[in-house]
Amino acid sequence: MSFTFDIVAKTGSARAGVFSTPHGPVETPAFMPVGTLATVKSLDPDDLVRMGASMILGNAYHLHLRPGDDVVREMGGLHEFMRWDRPILTDSGGFQVFSLAQLRTVTEEGVEFQSHLDGSRRFFTPEIVMQIERNLGADVIMQFDHVIPGQSDEATARDASERSIRWLERCLKELQRLEETQPLEPPREEFPPDNPRNHQALFPIVQGGIHSQRRREAAERIQGLYDWAGFGIGGLSVGEEKDAMYEMIRVVDEALPRTHPRYLMGVGFPEDLIEAIERGVDLFDCVAPTRMGRNGAVFTHDGRLNIKRTEYRTDPRPLDPDCDCAACMRFSRAYIRHLFVSEEILGLRLLSLHNVHFLLSIARDARQAIINGDYESWSRDWLSRYRTSSPLAV
Amino acid sequence: MSFTFDIVAKTGSARAGVFSTPHGPVETPAFMPVGTLATVKSLDPDDLVRMGASMILGNAYHLHLRPGDDVVREMGGLHEFMRWDRPILTDSGGFQVFSLAQLRTVTEEGVEFQSHLDGSRRFFTPEIVMQIERNLGADVIMQFDHVIPGQSDEATARDASERSIRWLERCLKELQRLEETQPLEPPREEFPPDNPRNHQALFPIVQGGIHSQRRREAAERIQGLYDWAGFGIGGLSVGEEKDAMYEMIRVVDEALPRTHPRYLMGVGFPEDLIEAIERGVDLFDCVAPTRMGRNGAVFTHDGRLNIKRTEYRTDPRPLDPDCDCAACMRFSRAYIRHLFVSEEILGLRLLSLHNVHFLLSIARDARQAIINGDYESWSRDWLSRYRTSSPLAV
Repeated sequence: MSFTFDIVAKTGSARAGVFSTPHGPVETPAFMPVGTLATVKSLDPDDLVRMGASMILGNAYHLHLRPGDDVVREMGGLHEFMRWDRPILTDSGGFQVFSLAQLRTVTEEGVEFQSHLDGSRRFFTPEIVMQIERNLGADVIMQFDHVIPGQSDEATARDASERSIRWLERCLKELQRLEETQPLEPPREEFPPDNPRNHQALFPIVQGGIHSQRRREAAERIQGLYDWAGFGIGGLSVGEEKDAMYEMIRVVDEALPRTHPRYLMGVGFPEDLIEAIERGVDLFDCVAPTRMGRNGAVFTHDGRLNIKRTEYRTDPRPLDPDCDCAACMRFSRAYIRHLFVSEEILGLRLLSLHNVHFLLSIARDARQAIINGDYESWSRDWLSRYRTSSPLAV
Repeated sequence: MSFTFDIVAKTGSARAGVFSTPHGPVETPAFMPVGTLATVKSLDPDDLVRMGASMILGNAYHLHLRPGDDVVREMGGLHEFMRWDRPILTDSGGFQVFSLAQLRTVTEEGVEFQSHLDGSRRFFTPEIVMQIERNLGADVIMQFDHVIPGQSDEATARDASERSIRWLERCLKELQRLEETQPLEPPREEFPPDNPRNHQALFPIVQGGIHSQRRREAAERIQGLYDWAGFGIGGLSVGEEKDAMYEMIRVVDEALPRTHPRYLMGVGFPEDLIEAIERGVDLFDCVAPTRMGRNGAVFTHDGRLNIKRTEYRTDPRPLDPDCDCAACMRFSRAYIRHLFVSEEILGLRLLSLHNVHFLLSIARDARQAIINGDYESWSRDWLSRYRTSSPLAV
């Protein structure tokens, strides 16, 4: 079995586990840094190793357009191409097709759209997306799904969810065909004849908008199709209220098997991680830490600050005095502000490095709190400090 | 004595030495990466340490404008601000005032100009520049000089050179006053009462354009003024012919004492380093490796290549198969090309890292060749391969 999930501790719905993949284990809860174009923006793989990242993301839509999944395959797959020998998960591009690309036409067969880069016409079907994700060769690959706005009505949510489930069946069939016909790696001496690295775990995505009944129904139907290695929870953090998101996570937590990892897609911010871990989520990803870093925004235990502000001009303190990342252990706010204001690349790198490390640390600390049996008090204290402090008062 | 220069081997005019500074030794010949705004563009100080950089540059003009030399002083000086505990040299900003700033008025007193950033009016005199360089606190500080275009006539060259020498005297007097009144670091237990880190070495700059007699005259007059720790050679690589530059270096080599380090400012490219080392130069700086990196240009032992070219799309080789930098040891041309074409920051960092490492390595290899006594054959072979190979044929 290439993929296993072992739960080592539980507190209510929150769990600490180990998700094993062909490229090694992922200790959960885990935050997965996003490497859309085969690089976590502004960071070096070595930075990620030093911060203790395990699984990272790539994106099928973006890598199909640049450099081309055929190029990645020719270069030995995404792990080899970007020199990341730990687990990788690729998103299918469903989200990008429905948010970034232009002039979409959705049919039962798939989605025709225009590339956001050059306007070229493209056609994604469940089968084509599986071929792309096979070429990329990540450990975990997400199904191609129909993504809708966060506040869509129930009929729209039902329609998209049902289409996503039909597409899931096609994804599974195509992946099974590809595993037979297109080995991921040439057989190597260190691997047994049935190379476990040939297997990719297809994760289904539970859709259903903010409609509990649709979510329950999707979770049920998906489970009946196959013995999945884990489940994605999609279509959240896309414009709906936070309370609605937390409620949907709770509903899905009850509807999915507790024996398998759950990946809440595109979430999140520090408070979202903590609330969702309490509701049984194991895996997270979000572009916020790198995107925010590029805007000068910094996570700290006392809330967010923006390094551009004049008050940091001669501030000798680190970004977050309670952080042990490679930026905080070395540089002052004054220096990082100077770099950022002067548009120096090192400034972007240090802010991204800090923010990604911050989210990795939250997941790690949450895991330890679950193991210690005090997740409730840890998360209450953490959120209370984060929500009420002013970074000026640090 | 805070600054010493020990020559460990010689071949003709070429020498291998050790230039000792309050922040440690510089093995010469040495290439000094340029950290204009208190950061070597796109690199982390840790990258530079790993590549074996010893002395790096800062720039008085740029740091005066951003973040302000007063800010740097308040943050403990440039070493502390940018966390570089090895030697630093600051350029005076003479070159920037005469090349980057607008609407200059030059008088005997100094230069009035407009900031290239916001057009604000500024006034630099030798005294003000020394105050700026004192606030920055580098080990070696360059005099404020009058820089002229590379092909200026002899009268212009003479006028600028003589003014530069008068300004040098004022720089020296002001630095001596500042060393008495403005200690660089608070006394620490680990330093003796007369903290050697309080001393800065003022380097004069030999000017004179492409006119041998003016160069000889300047070298003579400067030596008569003070027991300098080393000498700058300025006003080269600013538009004149390469042969004229090499000839001026030869003239200055003969006119300056062979006991002291010579720093050829703003040079160079690989071939310039090798030609100038042969003519007795010890120290170099140039923005080319980082600037070229930002344009996709790559130094290799077989000449330059541009990573943007389509032919590298699936090229599995490193940038330079004979390079052991952190980019070449890990990544393919195909990956770095993808990063560069996709405008990913990691691409810029890897190209800069490689190019800076390449120049550091040339200086290091040249030093070893001098010590081995075979500089002539080493440099001939090196240049022959660099100038005749095509990177396509690697």
